[in-house]
Amino acid sequence: MSENGSLRRGRPGYDQQGILEVAVAAFNQYGYDATSMGVLADRLGLSKSAIYHHFASKDEILERALDDALGALEGVLSEADAAGGRAADRVDHVLRGAVRVLVAKLSSVTLLLRVRGNTEVERRALARRRAFDKAVTALVEEAQAEGTLRSDIDASVVARLTFGMINSIVEWYRPGGREDADKLADDVIAVALDGLRMPTSNRVDELLG
Amino acid sequence: MSENGSLRRGRPGYDQQGILEVAVAAFNQYGYDATSMGVLADRLGLSKSAIYHHFASKDEILERALDDALGALEGVLSEADAAGGRAADRVDHVLRGAVRVLVAKLSSVTLLLRVRGNTEVERRALARRRAFDKAVTALVEEAQAEGTLRSDIDASVVARLTFGMINSIVEWYRPGGREDADKLADDVIAVALDGLRMPTSNRVDELLG
Repeated sequence: MSENGSLRRGRPGYDQQGILEVAVAAFNQYGYDATSMGVLADRLGLSKSAIYHHFASKDEILERALDDALGALEGVLSEADAAGGRAADRVDHVLRGAVRVLVAKLSSVTLLLRVRGNTEVERRALARRRAFDKAVTALVEEAQAEGTLRSDIDASVVARLTFGMINSIVEWYRPGGREDADKLADDVIAVALDGLRMPTSNRVDELLG
Repeated sequence: MSENGSLRRGRPGYDQQGILEVAVAAFNQYGYDATSMGVLADRLGLSKSAIYHHFASKDEILERALDDALGALEGVLSEADAAGGRAADRVDHVLRGAVRVLVAKLSSVTLLLRVRGNTEVERRALARRRAFDKAVTALVEEAQAEGTLRSDIDASVVARLTFGMINSIVEWYRPGGREDADKLADDVIAVALDGLRMPTSNRVDELLG
């Protein structure tokens, strides 16, 4: 919950951000369709009208949560573009950044990954996800063309497999566990970019001929 | 549907396997809870009693479908164990085998991955999934100990990330697409074991010192 008193318009205890967090947790637990404004009001200990003071509709709560996750992921792409340099380094930046966003915004990213396009808000979110995937695929193609990433795998398959690995983290990651976001990002980079096989096992033999 | 006439006990057109396939597709589309025996009967163009001729309950259909997926995955592990040799090669065998099972049994694996433990049948399936994950983690640990897989990543994180990547394939893979199971298995092995980065980009520099 925000410490900023000026954001508090409802009852003490829940500002807009606080309501959003409880709502996203409920959507993830029961499903968006199964979570009515009445259920949310019960969970918050607020009246429905107190929630409507902050959000025009349940759809608006969903939109805000999805925008939170998508905006952060799109920010990672923009940072990578702004940093310039080799495409392989920008791929590294995007993968690490995506892991950090996932850990920092675990609930809203979880919600985003479950969106199936049942409403207009969901369809807009899916369109932004597709644009993100397309940008990642283009970045991988660039790295393949510059010769820094292997080109024997289709770039869109590379994007899908690496983001499949990253997105699967929501299934098991719990804050406060053994791995923090940076270690987890290192692990993902280690697997995706350098691979698990020890170079000494047969890679060096091949490389040294 | 099976060609074997002796399996056909219901109306012409659907043997037990045929009913199972239609049921699994419906469970994946609408959710297990939302798919009643009445809905299934409508979809099959059969009476409910014709379905009960083959399956004692909806739960039994689910159990058969989950057993189909789990049995195939467990078979991959047994084959790897039976083959012996270096643990890294057995990891390779398990990852490739899991991709092939996923492609061959896309619907039942998709169903398995959505199981949340709401019923006794689901809880038994989750217990088998956990045992499978544990066996994969043990295999990775063995490969780390023999020095063939890198040991700077926790073995259980390795198992989660690689199977996260493999399992994500159900989200986008469609039979008859550009990639067949063998190419997809090659791609997964290429990413997970050897990594995307071209050795010439900076790996060889490091290796050759």
